[in-house]
Amino acid sequence: MADQITKRSENYSQWYNDLVVKADLAEQSSVRGCMVIKPYGYAIWEKMQRTLDDMFKATGVQNAYFPLFIPKSFFSREAEHVAGFAKECAVVTHHRLMNDPDGKGVVVDPSARLEEELIVRPTSETIIWSTYKNWIKSWRDLPILCNQWANVVRWEMRTRLFLRTAEFLWQEGHTAHATAQEAQEETMRMVNVYADFARNCLALPVIVGHKSPNERFAGALDTMTIEAMMQDGKALQAGTSHFLGQNFAKSFDVKFANKEGELEYVWATSWGVSTRLMGALVMAHGDDNGLVLPPALAPIQVVMVPIFKTAEEHDAIIAKMQELKAGLEAKGHSVRIDDRDTLRPGFKFAEWELKGVPVRFAMGPRDLANGTVEVARRDTLTKSTVALEGLVDSVEALLADIQKGIYEKALAFRASHVEKCDDWEEFKAKIGTGKFLLCHWDGTAETEQKIKDETKATIRCIPVDSFVCEEEGKDIYSGKPSSRRVVFAISY
Amino acid sequence: MADQITKRSENYSQWYNDLVVKADLAEQSSVRGCMVIKPYGYAIWEKMQRTLDDMFKATGVQNAYFPLFIPKSFFSREAEHVAGFAKECAVVTHHRLMNDPDGKGVVVDPSARLEEELIVRPTSETIIWSTYKNWIKSWRDLPILCNQWANVVRWEMRTRLFLRTAEFLWQEGHTAHATAQEAQEETMRMVNVYADFARNCLALPVIVGHKSPNERFAGALDTMTIEAMMQDGKALQAGTSHFLGQNFAKSFDVKFANKEGELEYVWATSWGVSTRLMGALVMAHGDDNGLVLPPALAPIQVVMVPIFKTAEEHDAIIAKMQELKAGLEAKGHSVRIDDRDTLRPGFKFAEWELKGVPVRFAMGPRDLANGTVEVARRDTLTKSTVALEGLVDSVEALLADIQKGIYEKALAFRASHVEKCDDWEEFKAKIGTGKFLLCHWDGTAETEQKIKDETKATIRCIPVDSFVCEEEGKDIYSGKPSSRRVVFAISY
Repeated sequence: MADQITKRSENYSQWYNDLVVKADLAEQSSVRGCMVIKPYGYAIWEKMQRTLDDMFKATGVQNAYFPLFIPKSFFSREAEHVAGFAKECAVVTHHRLMNDPDGKGVVVDPSARLEEELIVRPTSETIIWSTYKNWIKSWRDLPILCNQWANVVRWEMRTRLFLRTAEFLWQEGHTAHATAQEAQEETMRMVNVYADFARNCLALPVIVGHKSPNERFAGALDTMTIEAMMQDGKALQAGTSHFLGQNFAKSFDVKFANKEGELEYVWATSWGVSTRLMGALVMAHGDDNGLVLPPALAPIQVVMVPIFKTAEEHDAIIAKMQELKAGLEAKGHSVRIDDRDTLRPGFKFAEWELKGVPVRFAMGPRDLANGTVEVARRDTLTKSTVALEGLVDSVEALLADIQKGIYEKALAFRASHVEKCDDWEEFKAKIGTGKFLLCHWDGTAETEQKIKDETKATIRCIPVDSFVCEEEGKDIYSGKPSSRRVVFAISY
Repeated sequence: MADQITKRSENYSQWYNDLVVKADLAEQSSVRGCMVIKPYGYAIWEKMQRTLDDMFKATGVQNAYFPLFIPKSFFSREAEHVAGFAKECAVVTHHRLMNDPDGKGVVVDPSARLEEELIVRPTSETIIWSTYKNWIKSWRDLPILCNQWANVVRWEMRTRLFLRTAEFLWQEGHTAHATAQEAQEETMRMVNVYADFARNCLALPVIVGHKSPNERFAGALDTMTIEAMMQDGKALQAGTSHFLGQNFAKSFDVKFANKEGELEYVWATSWGVSTRLMGALVMAHGDDNGLVLPPALAPIQVVMVPIFKTAEEHDAIIAKMQELKAGLEAKGHSVRIDDRDTLRPGFKFAEWELKGVPVRFAMGPRDLANGTVEVARRDTLTKSTVALEGLVDSVEALLADIQKGIYEKALAFRASHVEKCDDWEEFKAKIGTGKFLLCHWDGTAETEQKIKDETKATIRCIPVDSFVCEEEGKDIYSGKPSSRRVVFAISY
């Protein structure tokens, strides 16, 4: 099992791909750049969805659904948006196939050309704001807090499972407000929802911060991000929340009558996370044996493997396991007894390690006689013999300890890979070695671009809740004055 | 409110559209044939999804996700499937837009033409069976029980909100089995899941039966359906489950090694329900005042409207309502207090009737003094004054009674609109008047087609669990011998 997986130290990128495929999370499909999300991977995504959805709803957000297709002309309305999104996309030009006159299968019917081409949504600001125009007349109609769970398509040239695929699944929230302040508060509220989710469910330490103007979403006045560090020291943008100002309201002419009866343009936000989070989960916590899943997102939290020679032993052990399973399920844990009769215990151990199940119980005849079970932790790969008495009650604390342990390990890793840097030569030497560098920046797009050109490093964010960055200094590149450090890194 | 709704007796079709739009379920979008599902409508759909998803999982089904796009050539592989599905569909031919050289927005980049066109999935058998080929080697890999919640596109010429839209949301289950018998059992298991869901959640009496060969899914050996009667006496196909035999396995060369080591083609089923169920819900139960939602699917089960003159009265009533709300929510009911200060109680009553909320509490100062509340039932439009004491505990039974009452009303309606018919002239006279006719049929596609040509009626199904149809007789049209009656109706 684990010997089929490339080691991280040999080839981190291949290791990632091996994990995704061999742990049955996803695979390439026959359609270029599109993936199949397999049941085990989808079960993790469903847990993410359910948790996030509850968190959104707790802030007053409601779900809705908007069309898959966007008329081509909509993209021309918001000038920056068209530059950012309308280029590499899937374009529907016809609405009918017909039998090939030469008898070879089917061909596109040339007579069924659409009057206006439709774009498969790469993001839905335009179609949603064209809809909000009909929903908003007065201040009484605001705020609108809508989210949708949907598929989107961006025609990426180079794709990687979960991290960058032509089609991906995501949620996109789109809110409409009467004032700039309200919209800015919403932008911040949602990036904080993402940060809480990342830290508490994904066990992922993230830095919350502003994107630099160069890295903003097309059409946004401000983009907030959560940035995570992977085990190769690269940064992964795990979620974004945008303050869109009145840009889309102006493009789609969405005004409301305020309490004084005057017409004003509406203020907007949008925010999203995607199946990319699956990639973050794999890359942040996996090891050379496979996935390491935080209990909060593991489809199976406890797996039980029986070890036996005779049918009597088998039946007695399985009976005891079913008792344990019932007890654990009553406490809300998800449990699987691996009773497959064609596989040896060692094979099963390796398979469940590969799949990242947080806790494994193994029980043989001696355990049964002694009233014990062997408990293995996936995160630390440690084993211990535990008395059956009190075992069921202890699992909640064990899972919580694993959840915490995975987070703290990732946090310690990050702490050892972040440093302040004030010298350009040092920057160039270190930036490619898997580090986040906290550097002074003069605030100009020009300097940012030059640093990117020379080193491929970008400003991941201007942090607001991690690291103390407020201090006077000089830009790492230009030497111009700066009042705070920002995070530079090579990113996914 | 209700006076903005066309009456059923005046124009049933317009009444339906009024309800969908004015109750905030859905609306047309700027994209031809595609709808926007609004938050209130989507909340109902989410309840349907959650309930069905739990029912599927209880039978061992897992969710997964397959690509939105299907290579054009896949449709040519299964001969019947291409005829049924590959015609009116959205065809992606290009993957890039570019700035119009004339400076007018964006145009399709002619150099970005795809080598092979991609079809936006109208249904996913082909892409899924091309994937299953890689998943299935041996009998140990079977059965595969996968479902996906997804959007699909069929380029319909005439669309109606929920009932027939170019894009719609659905679930599609796709299972793979080692034997024909297992696949047939799965087909039956899933149509029965649909029937249970329709009866117990949608409060919709449905007839389970086989489709006649003419009406089968393209590529199926047998199609099971649930057929419901709307209030105009027309039939609505509410869900289907298909036994696909080995057709897709043969088209995509999917074989497994059986226990004897011999290679066999895999047996398949597929089954689905869609946002069309939303249309069924509206049309089966709504009245001239608006929606009537079964409590099992109502996003708000109890709405409370305060009636007051002074601020003191308002505060005292709202305080009591919050107490009731907390009590009801603790019992798992969903509750809303309508404390909007700009609307009169009568307006609120009408709005919540329009939106189909099953139970309404109204409370004024006299109620508060007397320790009572006015309880109104949406289904019967009856009101009664009820003591506050014990009220919270009584709501569960009230909701159950409403759920049952809605079902029984629909069942009684259907009972009074189904009859046996043995005379062709009578058939022609009655079939357009909103009835299901139980008639003998000789089992030939030819007769079925002639009846359809002359009357627009189709065989909705050959029932297996409703009505006693097994009896000897003569075909209503051809006079040839028949051994059972089938259900004829005009359908949506």
